[in-house]
Amino acid sequence: MESKTVELRNLVKNNSPLVHNITNVVVTNFTANGLYAIGASPVMAYAKEEVGDMASISQALVLNIGTLTSTEVEAMFIAGESANKHGVPIILDPVGVGATPYRTQTAKELLNRLSIQVVRGNAAEIANLIDEQVQMHGVDSKVEINNLADLAKKAANKLNTIIVMTGKTDLITNGEILFEVRNGHPMLTKVTGTGCLLSSVVAAFCSQSDDKTTACAAAVSFYGIAAEKAIEVNQSKGPGHFQMNFIDQLYNITDETIVNNIKIKQTQ
Amino acid sequence: MESKTVELRNLVKNNSPLVHNITNVVVTNFTANGLYAIGASPVMAYAKEEVGDMASISQALVLNIGTLTSTEVEAMFIAGESANKHGVPIILDPVGVGATPYRTQTAKELLNRLSIQVVRGNAAEIANLIDEQVQMHGVDSKVEINNLADLAKKAANKLNTIIVMTGKTDLITNGEILFEVRNGHPMLTKVTGTGCLLSSVVAAFCSQSDDKTTACAAAVSFYGIAAEKAIEVNQSKGPGHFQMNFIDQLYNITDETIVNNIKIKQTQ
Amino acid sequence: MESKTVELRNLVKNNSPLVHNITNVVVTNFTANGLYAIGASPVMAYAKEEVGDMASISQALVLNIGTLTSTEVEAMFIAGESANKHGVPIILDPVGVGATPYRTQTAKELLNRLSIQVVRGNAAEIANLIDEQVQMHGVDSKVEINNLADLAKKAANKLNTIIVMTGKTDLITNGEILFEVRNGHPMLTKVTGTGCLLSSVVAAFCSQSDDKTTACAAAVSFYGIAAEKAIEVNQSKGPGHFQMNFIDQLYNITDETIVNNIKIKQTQ
Repeated sequence: MESKTVELRNLVKNNSPLVHNITNVVVTNFTANGLYAIGASPVMAYAKEEVGDMASISQALVLNIGTLTSTEVEAMFIAGESANKHGVPIILDPVGVGATPYRTQTAKELLNRLSIQVVRGNAAEIANLIDEQVQMHGVDSKVEINNLADLAKKAANKLNTIIVMTGKTDLITNGEILFEVRNGHPMLTKVTGTGCLLSSVVAAFCSQSDDKTTACAAAVSFYGIAAEKAIEVNQSKGPGHFQMNFIDQLYNITDETIVNNIKIKQTQ
Repeated sequence: MESKTVELRNLVKNNSPLVHNITNVVVTNFTANGLYAIGASPVMAYAKEEVGDMASISQALVLNIGTLTSTEVEAMFIAGESANKHGVPIILDPVGVGATPYRTQTAKELLNRLSIQVVRGNAAEIANLIDEQVQMHGVDSKVEINNLADLAKKAANKLNTIIVMTGKTDLITNGEILFEVRNGHPMLTKVTGTGCLLSSVVAAFCSQSDDKTTACAAAVSFYGIAAEKAIEVNQSKGPGHFQMNFIDQLYNITDETIVNNIKIKQTQ
Repeated sequence: MESKTVELRNLVKNNSPLVHNITNVVVTNFTANGLYAIGASPVMAYAKEEVGDMASISQALVLNIGTLTSTEVEAMFIAGESANKHGVPIILDPVGVGATPYRTQTAKELLNRLSIQVVRGNAAEIANLIDEQVQMHGVDSKVEINNLADLAKKAANKLNTIIVMTGKTDLITNGEILFEVRNGHPMLTKVTGTGCLLSSVVAAFCSQSDDKTTACAAAVSFYGIAAEKAIEVNQSKGPGHFQMNFIDQLYNITDETIVNNIKIKQTQ
């Protein structure tokens, strides 16, 4: 996986894929800067009058329901149908699914009516998408790894999509193959939008490969390594500086650093 | 007040209260990161279809009219009514009241129709809420402290709420008790959203105490101390680095630093 | 131009012009912080109920179509008509014109129905505004400088506005006079919103002078010098730290630094 991850990272940097984000108002700036840092071209467009056109010329489309409104959901369907028609992969980030019925219902409708290639969320969000009653403590801290793998695979099969389930260990599965990624750092949970940006980075990597499950695993590992390196230079500073150091690392990280720090295991 | 401030700060950190923000599009990211830094759980939700549900499961609700639209105002009323019904405290930040009739009218309607526990604003905003003609030079720089205290108490009584009036000296009053806080730093006025984030930090502290006037004073002092410490490490750098150092300090500040730097005086 | 640039920069700092921005959701925070850093007073207001009032009390109005929606476009016309009526200069940033028909059509309508003093965009955006088929490689990298100057002047005359066309060399023209500015740094292209913030800085400078073409050139040069100085302190760090260092420099830059680094040439 080292060479595949290095290859995809460099393809993103060299090809600058246009990633169309319909995302929440909290993370727009951080997402755009993170995509620029890895060499991708971010675009945000929300108007129903243009999202179809924009999605059709993009290399990937990210739908993030973090601050959804009915107007935005309408735009998501238009963009999504255009993406499907033009063979543009869609990545869904079901932020906060389970917190309110409206979120849960909207995420399910998006999955029903569109062909979505990847869903990126935490264990609670993934569980809620398939109506699983998973006993969570804090989200996923006390749940056994085997259960999470079962949950991810079940969701992948039921929703007919690749699942990227992030947590202490990140799991990536298409329902058959399963990757475990053990890169990353807990400080990521102290900065808003790190999950959302990951979804967009996954989108950028997916745009550069037909083997999207492997591309997802590579993106998640690359992202986690950048976080680890950011912590090394962050020293005793807090999440304010971490945010900047993390963007710097997404930009600066070398092939050698990837090779030396990657922790991906294909377990199934 | 030292021990009370330390206690509330640690309660926020340990209990991670869910703070629901309906806030302006300029400060969403900074607000979320600031709330994460103090250990709270931020959530932003705007859709009328879900704000009632979200407010009902939150520990505090922040209504900020910085970039209000009619759709957002509608959502504020739904969220506010749900918060009132479920005993969730509401903090109103009347950004720019007085600048346009629409803002002034909306803020007054929110105060009329909802039960709002705290209003956090500068002297000009508070004055405009109660139609006072206060002679301002730059907002509040040349107004005598006694007049400001009278203004704050008058507003608290007239609006039946706690007033947190920030300026060179911060005043907190429920109409009877009055706290003066002399922490903080002028650099806060050079970074957008520092007032808005303070309103959300006040919300987090209020969620952890029945004595909300004291909780407001504790939050304001804690916030000001973090700014003072951020300036110490900021050296000759400008507002760009200050923003990061301030988030770091909200995260890192120790009980001892609070005790050694707190400047709260109950004057009435 | 040194003394003019220094003079305008200090006028902005001392007079704190109120700059009303109707801008995209990606750059609101960065724009507000950048305007604060140069001493201006940013305000963001979007509701059709108040944009007319807000524009009328502002010293400049920025219309940025980066994430336009039909509701926002409606507000832009109301704000723009009020600005025209009250003699408030309007700066248009036609983000992404040419990417979708909706963007192109909206930008043209804004130019048709409003009196717009300045348009700030890259060569591709300017070309699309006047239906020019310019052969672009990457946006403007392989186009000869003479062609770009012709394009800028043609656009200025056809649209009856000042054109600020940014790229490797920045061109400012009212259709007759032409300034070339060679300040700046490529790292600006790695941070989202640097073009958008420049439009708002141009607005602030324009509010302080009747000679708006010169004010535009001064703003562009000042902005580029701040980027150059930010790179000097940024060392081997990436775009994360650059963003902070750039805001710091917008705040800290001295008259002497401007005089010593300015690269403006009036060529026609």
